[in-house]
Amino acid sequence: MLPRHRFAATLLVGLLAGSAWASAQTQAPTPTRAQVLARSSPAEWRTPDPDNLLVMQLPTGRVLIELAPGFTPLHAANIRTLVRGHYFDGLSINRVQDNFVTQWDDPASNADTPDPRKLKPLGSAKRTLPPEYTRPIDPKLPWTALPDGDVYAPEVGFSEGFPVARDPASGQQWLTHCYGMVGVARDVAPDSGNGSSLYVVIGQAPRRLDRNLAVAGRVLEGMPLLSALPRGDGPMGFYTRPSQRTPIESVRLASELPPAQRPSIQVLRTDSASFAALLDAQRHRHDAFYKVSSGKVGLCSIEVPVREPKRDAASP
Amino acid sequence: MLPRHRFAATLLVGLLAGSAWASAQTQAPTPTRAQVLARSSPAEWRTPDPDNLLVMQLPTGRVLIELAPGFTPLHAANIRTLVRGHYFDGLSINRVQDNFVTQWDDPASNADTPDPRKLKPLGSAKRTLPPEYTRPIDPKLPWTALPDGDVYAPEVGFSEGFPVARDPASGQQWLTHCYGMVGVARDVAPDSGNGSSLYVVIGQAPRRLDRNLAVAGRVLEGMPLLSALPRGDGPMGFYTRPSQRTPIESVRLASELPPAQRPSIQVLRTDSASFAALLDAQRHRHDAFYKVSSGKVGLCSIEVPVREPKRDAASP
Repeated sequence: MLPRHRFAATLLVGLLAGSAWASAQTQAPTPTRAQVLARSSPAEWRTPDPDNLLVMQLPTGRVLIELAPGFTPLHAANIRTLVRGHYFDGLSINRVQDNFVTQWDDPASNADTPDPRKLKPLGSAKRTLPPEYTRPIDPKLPWTALPDGDVYAPEVGFSEGFPVARDPASGQQWLTHCYGMVGVARDVAPDSGNGSSLYVVIGQAPRRLDRNLAVAGRVLEGMPLLSALPRGDGPMGFYTRPSQRTPIESVRLASELPPAQRPSIQVLRTDSASFAALLDAQRHRHDAFYKVSSGKVGLCSIEVPVREPKRDAASP
Repeated sequence: MLPRHRFAATLLVGLLAGSAWASAQTQAPTPTRAQVLARSSPAEWRTPDPDNLLVMQLPTGRVLIELAPGFTPLHAANIRTLVRGHYFDGLSINRVQDNFVTQWDDPASNADTPDPRKLKPLGSAKRTLPPEYTRPIDPKLPWTALPDGDVYAPEVGFSEGFPVARDPASGQQWLTHCYGMVGVARDVAPDSGNGSSLYVVIGQAPRRLDRNLAVAGRVLEGMPLLSALPRGDGPMGFYTRPSQRTPIESVRLASELPPAQRPSIQVLRTDSASFAALLDAQRHRHDAFYKVSSGKVGLCSIEVPVREPKRDAASP
């Protein structure tokens, strides 16, 4: 994993290696993440609904975000309305706080006292929304339990590719603030978030935010374009000068794009056998490099795999 | 925490707010991290031994790293020897893998088959070292238990400012791979790490690395200079072109610098009442913004405070 030269790297491709079934039977090194995925079947991959897939174009490249209407349906609907109205086009990334979040919105909204005349109009989108910080546990939503435990919640697992926590006592479940998850910034009032200001987690999962903010979705592609930006020099990581901001060229729903231009991205089903095999490989790792297996895997240490057949085919 | 404008920010300065004692007695908003630290006493702060403090100068600024000889004494000694021999001067940051690590070392050491004639000599430093992945639990080392639980280890807590896990069954303890922790890269052989190649965690804590690599210390200052670098375009985040590397101008021990040039940095004692108050504030948060307290705090979600009186006094 942290070899000093590339020779060792060939033994250690990717973040995951090993599998429980192989190690139980043989001394052979467990397969890598790439090997597990190569064995997966087409039915184990899910194509996001193009109405839930945001395509954000930055000068440096493309970011893909999948909305989570199963958990935050009113926010997903409002974000779709904003995107269809081209609300985000010409706005910018205005805040990058190290080991915390990158945030994009209308820079005029971040003034000490925002001037309503300078704010970009929200169009037909709603100004306020019910919080949607949690939602009732519902057997209609997929649920794959992660039995390894969690510091912050009684139960954790995955639903449709998203990391989820839940509390049987309250009957509520919620999306968790793991790396790459996208949340809805707000003012003090719980209904003051509307999706016009969004942030993505770029460091250690700030799980204290869970149940205090609406989580709208997950970045499927392009995290380095958001995580490697210069940290803001102002309070809370806001940039102090307009020239520091990264402009947003456009945000579109994949469903708005001509079919040929739509991303072909797919997400490994979190209720699939291959996903379970990846988790086992992460727990029980037996190869030349690893001396001790962790035996467990934390919710936010699991990166749900994505692939993009069209782009992958175009690669040399 | 994620306000849309600065007005809300004034209510929510810093990552931590609130305290158990205040919330138990009144409805007043709990104090912020800055307020808790302002109340701390001088005796609650520790000045790192200048023989354990590395000063790494990059073109973009200064990084301070505290070594942890209580846990990895042979590695600390070898790193000191390398630093005194100016080994790192002129080397570079050669690898940045998103949500994982930034690594610096001799770029020639990262070739598929390193050419021994091109490698920078280690001088009088040792080529191999006993692994030091764990060490026996020792009552002579400070220990402040964190009672909130952990996915990866039976017990976690802090020792001299460092996050630590331990296992009473095996009698072993070890430094954990939290954000900002510095580890020793190695080849496949467990004794192949010697401190000439180091990495720092820049994303979600890769706790699976615990007990598989020697952890040498912690970045006290300058994380944004390491975490916001462009991600490498090669396998495992290695840069593919020399021009992408960030050069290291110099690394010195603070003890090698003239007293006037030594950093005045201090670390909040992790066995202090103020540190305990900060953790309580993180668990039990009561203010206008937070609707629900997490009740718990994860080991790697705790940032041990530092301050630098000399630099702070020079600020406007």
